[in-house]
Amino acid sequence: MRKELERLVELDRERKLVAHIGALLGWDQETGMPPKAVDERSEQLALVESLAHEKSVRPEMGELLEKLGSTTENPGGDASLLPVERAYLRALRRSWDRDTKLPSDLVAEFARATSLGQAAWVQAKKNDDFASFAPHLQKVLDLIKREAACLSPGKPAYDVLLDLYEPGSTELSIRTVFSRLRRDLVAILAKIGSRPKIDDSILRETVGEARQRAASDWLMDVLGYDRLRGRLDVSAHPFTTTLGVDDVRITTRYIPGFFPSSLFSTMHETGHALYELGIAPGAEFRGTELAEAASMAVHESQSRFWENVIGRGEPFWKRNFTHLAELVSPALDGVRREDFVRSINKVEPSFIRTEADEVTYGLHIVLRFELESDLIAGRLAVRDVPEAWRAKAKDLLGLDVRDDVRGCLQDVHWSAGLFGYFPSYALGNLYAAQFADAMRKDIPDLDERVAMGDNASVLEWLRERVHAPGSFWLPGELVEKVTGSPLDPAHFIDYLDRKYSQIYGF
Amino acid sequence: MRKELERLVELDRERKLVAHIGALLGWDQETGMPPKAVDERSEQLALVESLAHEKSVRPEMGELLEKLGSTTENPGGDASLLPVERAYLRALRRSWDRDTKLPSDLVAEFARATSLGQAAWVQAKKNDDFASFAPHLQKVLDLIKREAACLSPGKPAYDVLLDLYEPGSTELSIRTVFSRLRRDLVAILAKIGSRPKIDDSILRETVGEARQRAASDWLMDVLGYDRLRGRLDVSAHPFTTTLGVDDVRITTRYIPGFFPSSLFSTMHETGHALYELGIAPGAEFRGTELAEAASMAVHESQSRFWENVIGRGEPFWKRNFTHLAELVSPALDGVRREDFVRSINKVEPSFIRTEADEVTYGLHIVLRFELESDLIAGRLAVRDVPEAWRAKAKDLLGLDVRDDVRGCLQDVHWSAGLFGYFPSYALGNLYAAQFADAMRKDIPDLDERVAMGDNASVLEWLRERVHAPGSFWLPGELVEKVTGSPLDPAHFIDYLDRKYSQIYGF
Repeated sequence: MRKELERLVELDRERKLVAHIGALLGWDQETGMPPKAVDERSEQLALVESLAHEKSVRPEMGELLEKLGSTTENPGGDASLLPVERAYLRALRRSWDRDTKLPSDLVAEFARATSLGQAAWVQAKKNDDFASFAPHLQKVLDLIKREAACLSPGKPAYDVLLDLYEPGSTELSIRTVFSRLRRDLVAILAKIGSRPKIDDSILRETVGEARQRAASDWLMDVLGYDRLRGRLDVSAHPFTTTLGVDDVRITTRYIPGFFPSSLFSTMHETGHALYELGIAPGAEFRGTELAEAASMAVHESQSRFWENVIGRGEPFWKRNFTHLAELVSPALDGVRREDFVRSINKVEPSFIRTEADEVTYGLHIVLRFELESDLIAGRLAVRDVPEAWRAKAKDLLGLDVRDDVRGCLQDVHWSAGLFGYFPSYALGNLYAAQFADAMRKDIPDLDERVAMGDNASVLEWLRERVHAPGSFWLPGELVEKVTGSPLDPAHFIDYLDRKYSQIYGF
Repeated sequence: MRKELERLVELDRERKLVAHIGALLGWDQETGMPPKAVDERSEQLALVESLAHEKSVRPEMGELLEKLGSTTENPGGDASLLPVERAYLRALRRSWDRDTKLPSDLVAEFARATSLGQAAWVQAKKNDDFASFAPHLQKVLDLIKREAACLSPGKPAYDVLLDLYEPGSTELSIRTVFSRLRRDLVAILAKIGSRPKIDDSILRETVGEARQRAASDWLMDVLGYDRLRGRLDVSAHPFTTTLGVDDVRITTRYIPGFFPSSLFSTMHETGHALYELGIAPGAEFRGTELAEAASMAVHESQSRFWENVIGRGEPFWKRNFTHLAELVSPALDGVRREDFVRSINKVEPSFIRTEADEVTYGLHIVLRFELESDLIAGRLAVRDVPEAWRAKAKDLLGLDVRDDVRGCLQDVHWSAGLFGYFPSYALGNLYAAQFADAMRKDIPDLDERVAMGDNASVLEWLRERVHAPGSFWLPGELVEKVTGSPLDPAHFIDYLDRKYSQIYGF
């Protein structure tokens, strides 16, 4: 490895080290920190963040990138470098540009606006008062457009923003995928709506925290989560966080009257953790930008894969239902496995995205994509968001939204300046289904294996193809490399069609 | 407040903030970190430590101290400053001198030698092989003497080292106290030895972790530990750590066959935590050097006070025994309170310091003080340590030490360069007893109050007089201020005499 590259790796690792320290501060704050420690903790976080920023914009890093021939236009650098080195430089150049192209006064203004915006959003949501939030949203919107202009002058703002979360994507590429998705999801939902509703009341028996915890622990083991490199804790909202190359932790929460919540959130977060723990772009690039996930959506594909494709599938419960019933006894005593599997796959349009099932979830995302792309492009005014939301909710989900709390005020994202982020959630499902189809070609007896308790084959397949490369490929390249074709929503639609035609009998 | 002082406080707080971040990294490592995370964690710790050091030796800090008139000879600075400001400057100057007077190559050499020394100690202890450890001990000893010479040229090395842990103390001042302590402890021990042994087998019933945890939680509440500013976890060795002004955490460990271990270690660490949480030298000096403990020994006085003076006292269990028996049931079913109190106060010479009772503990410390002061002064050669240890163990405790594992290899301290540290452990007991006597003058019905469950009066008294001042006083000044006289071992001896003459009937 060239000396310049070695030094670059050294500097890069140091900033990741700082980021991991920040992750510990954040993890502790969400899991066990004494409540009154919050004020000093925010000072500690600010200090670590400013140190991380400092280490991310060191001029020496920019000089080394240049010496190695990496520019915004030719991020991979000198053609004479090895492919893995070029992939590394490409990933690092993306991150360098993101970190250095924004003037610091704009960064500060944005931080202020989103901090105020989030506080205003909390209040607005509490009081169902969109009008009080509107000026904040407008301010954040103006600033995010200015940021986009700084990051890529001349490029449409929403394209710039999408690219932050899903490298290589554009409004057009997403719209192409989502318009097909929209049409087909609406069609499947209509078929489901024509069939009798599923009664899932068997999932509402009370299960104490200790028993739910035991079930979560067991599921983590079943899916192959190495507890020497991770752990499970409790937080208000489940999450996964990386505190080190060998330290990826998840959280869940235990709702006494709805135990499936912890089961599936544990499987979801385990999916995220397995991805992080599986990234292995070679020892030379351990703990560098190349060892980051390919994208938000690829990350989400891994959580959804384990939560839904595996965890809500018949084969998985063939193997595991009896033991689950023992662990949560007596909640599932006398319940038939088929009824359990039907219940955990109930589909029903609902107002809140985070509570949505596999079918309607995508429609929640399409709705947000259509609104936020219009907002950024100026085709929709902030004051018209509530009305536009209602119209689309009716159109896509058949729902009459009566208040903004269960409408356009439900998500924190826009108040925090996260425009271009929502599409990743739906893309994750599409990637997961497309990966699953490719996996079935390599492992034709996949269902039988899962039904026998062999999840290791699944994990090994994902590790080698999806996890290990980290950021070696852009997500679009990765999906082609792994499945042989570009992202195509047909895989997801076929998956839903196959699965739900059985469950609902259409 | 003068501008220079304001800036000094700002710089000081920033370094404390970094130290608290390091404390979180350490706490997490001892309590819940996934095992394989250890390598990266040590890199994270090294990064934070180097940042903390950088912030502790900023030349601006030295310039500000000078501008405010603070020198090594006149640490309090300009006479025109307020007393609290002068106390702050004195504390900060001490810390500044400690941090800046050592040449960095000596610091690095010392770090290497103690790291190797500790590893060698682990092996030597495993194999009962002092000879393999001796050259490491010699090296550490040579370096610590060089450090002492840098810190205070011309002053006897052991005086310099003692002053690091117990500001203001000298070999002579400690020897004066310890020679009296030695004589009187040996006398009390002889009286106890003439009486029948206590059978403490009632403490050996098995109690599961959940019940021991419940008992620890309850004891923390009983002693007044504010759980909004702290928490309890499990670690291999119990400790207290400060992660923020409002975040002081303790740990304990649960030994199924000896539940008193967790009870008393929880009370001990709670005592440390109550001290840290009670330091309140005014809002202007929150989170600064003035808000640090007065000394190691004063810290230890607080843990020993709650563990022994209160927690092993008859009045405390008058109030609390019944509930404890419920929590650990059936372990104490049918046991009389008097027998419980006798059992937890059993005195018997034993080889291991950390397992020693209230009476023999001090003799373990006297032994170490006499040896380490001789080592530093060159009156004892490293190779002669095992023999000297055996002689003193026989002399002080009446024990025949047959191997060095239970002799001079039992403690990690010397291998880590902690010379001058041991005396603090015994001084803590002396301070605790002297504070208790002063407290009894202000609260004559102390025992009755504790027996009624009123520990708040005790805590309030300690907070106001001992905790709140932080480092405002040197320990010698503090004890005079609080009790009206200098440190005098008579208080501790009287306390032991009163207590054990009752228990053993001599």
